[in-house]
Amino acid sequence: MATDMAQKDVVYVNGRFLPRSEARVSVEDRGFVFGDGVYEVLRAINGRLFATRFHNQRLERSLDGVRISLETGDSPAKFVEIGKQLLKQNNLLQGQATLYMQVTRGATTRAHNFPGPDVTPTVYISVARFAPYSELAESGAPAITHPDLRWARCDLKTLNLLPNVLASQTAKERGAFEAMLIRDGVVTEGTKTNFFGVVDGSLRTHPSDSHILPGITRSVLRDLARDLGIGLDETPIRASEIPKLTELFLTGTTTDVMPVVKLDDRPVGKGKPGELTRKLQRVLAESLASGGD
Amino acid sequence: MATDMAQKDVVYVNGRFLPRSEARVSVEDRGFVFGDGVYEVLRAINGRLFATRFHNQRLERSLDGVRISLETGDSPAKFVEIGKQLLKQNNLLQGQATLYMQVTRGATTRAHNFPGPDVTPTVYISVARFAPYSELAESGAPAITHPDLRWARCDLKTLNLLPNVLASQTAKERGAFEAMLIRDGVVTEGTKTNFFGVVDGSLRTHPSDSHILPGITRSVLRDLARDLGIGLDETPIRASEIPKLTELFLTGTTTDVMPVVKLDDRPVGKGKPGELTRKLQRVLAESLASGGD
Repeated sequence: MATDMAQKDVVYVNGRFLPRSEARVSVEDRGFVFGDGVYEVLRAINGRLFATRFHNQRLERSLDGVRISLETGDSPAKFVEIGKQLLKQNNLLQGQATLYMQVTRGATTRAHNFPGPDVTPTVYISVARFAPYSELAESGAPAITHPDLRWARCDLKTLNLLPNVLASQTAKERGAFEAMLIRDGVVTEGTKTNFFGVVDGSLRTHPSDSHILPGITRSVLRDLARDLGIGLDETPIRASEIPKLTELFLTGTTTDVMPVVKLDDRPVGKGKPGELTRKLQRVLAESLASGGD
Repeated sequence: MATDMAQKDVVYVNGRFLPRSEARVSVEDRGFVFGDGVYEVLRAINGRLFATRFHNQRLERSLDGVRISLETGDSPAKFVEIGKQLLKQNNLLQGQATLYMQVTRGATTRAHNFPGPDVTPTVYISVARFAPYSELAESGAPAITHPDLRWARCDLKTLNLLPNVLASQTAKERGAFEAMLIRDGVVTEGTKTNFFGVVDGSLRTHPSDSHILPGITRSVLRDLARDLGIGLDETPIRASEIPKLTELFLTGTTTDVMPVVKLDDRPVGKGKPGELTRKLQRVLAESLASGGD
């Protein structure tokens, strides 16, 4: 596509716009040596960004949670504006794209304790072309179950993503789209998505606590379900209830509503996307088509 | 000191020796965006490195645990040789220093799954002047208890260190040297040390399982204790047993044996380093003075 061929691949690091290939950070950046930072991923369709207010609030919450203070004048809203400039500079105002924003505690001599106020956060922002999983969203995807090995503050969107990386890779190697994580006998969420399921006719998902990330699409979908008169029971699905699942889907900024039709090589329900899943898929798609802010 | 003034501060990144201020990695390095890597810290005294064999084995084990394959020709032993060159180049062959070795899964377009074989690991090695905590080792240090919020694979020395960073900072703000982490009602270890305590006359420490890092100094000390006929009971100390502690100390590559004389503002035992602690401190110091490999 012409727009892709013209893509310049410019990113933003600490006040500078520069080619991705030249965008570098110090080996002493606390992101690099401690994973000491947080991030957000936003969705853009034809230059319109979605749910920026919620993403900005969550970024603020993650920053507070790990106690990183932005420099005076910086804010998530400012980062989104930079993101918009990047979409333009990279010819991504048409079609689908993602916006990635990351903040670390900055670069300094390695020591676990926080650095002094002279060390300022590192801000990295980039955009990329994105192709939705349209075919898979139609057919439904396979998933696996996997132990949830993550830390106790999964509600913060931090760079400590090694357990997610390892579980995601295991899923891929087993031909699955996502790993459904199980902690203390309950389904928490995926490595980069939230999980919803239908058990005994009730739509269920894990409550928003420290064991899951409060997904923006999860939250949007809850509101859409309510508008449709569909109840949502935030009682976690127990691993022992998995055989009773008649529908299963996951949600995320880049996955929308993705039906899961196979779990650990066994069909979920009738082995095809369920009725409720289809309905929610449709209303989310309509919301994306009409929305943006 | 002349040696410090002459220090050039050269580090190693991916085959190149260069000034620390110019040592940079891509913003797409998986260490920077996922904390997707592992590391080791070694101790050097007058140019002699300690327990390199154990550190190399542990680095191999961490690499295996997170499934990072080094490039052909690379190995922990080679990294140690590079470390020795750095000690020389940085005029750190006299006095105390640390050697830091880090390997990440390399730089590539951000995606949780492992990259293809064309993406090679990033290797970062550096050395630094180090001053032992001599005064504190004499007087004993204060510590606090803190919930252990870390993931389920603390036996791997990875870059996912945010929970360690946060607990360490809390300790510092409460005037403490270290945080003693408590998981499911038992003392696991510190944010960068292992903990040992004496309860009812028995020396106890957490067993080597997935909830603690198998510390090299912990292991050396166990051997030294055995040689002295001091039994070590690897039954974890329960939080409920804390009031019964008559001695408490922590161990680590840069902390040696550090007596803990105050815990959450209450004295441990008689509020001064205990007899067994002193004895182990002495034998470890002798081992360091005579050893090195």
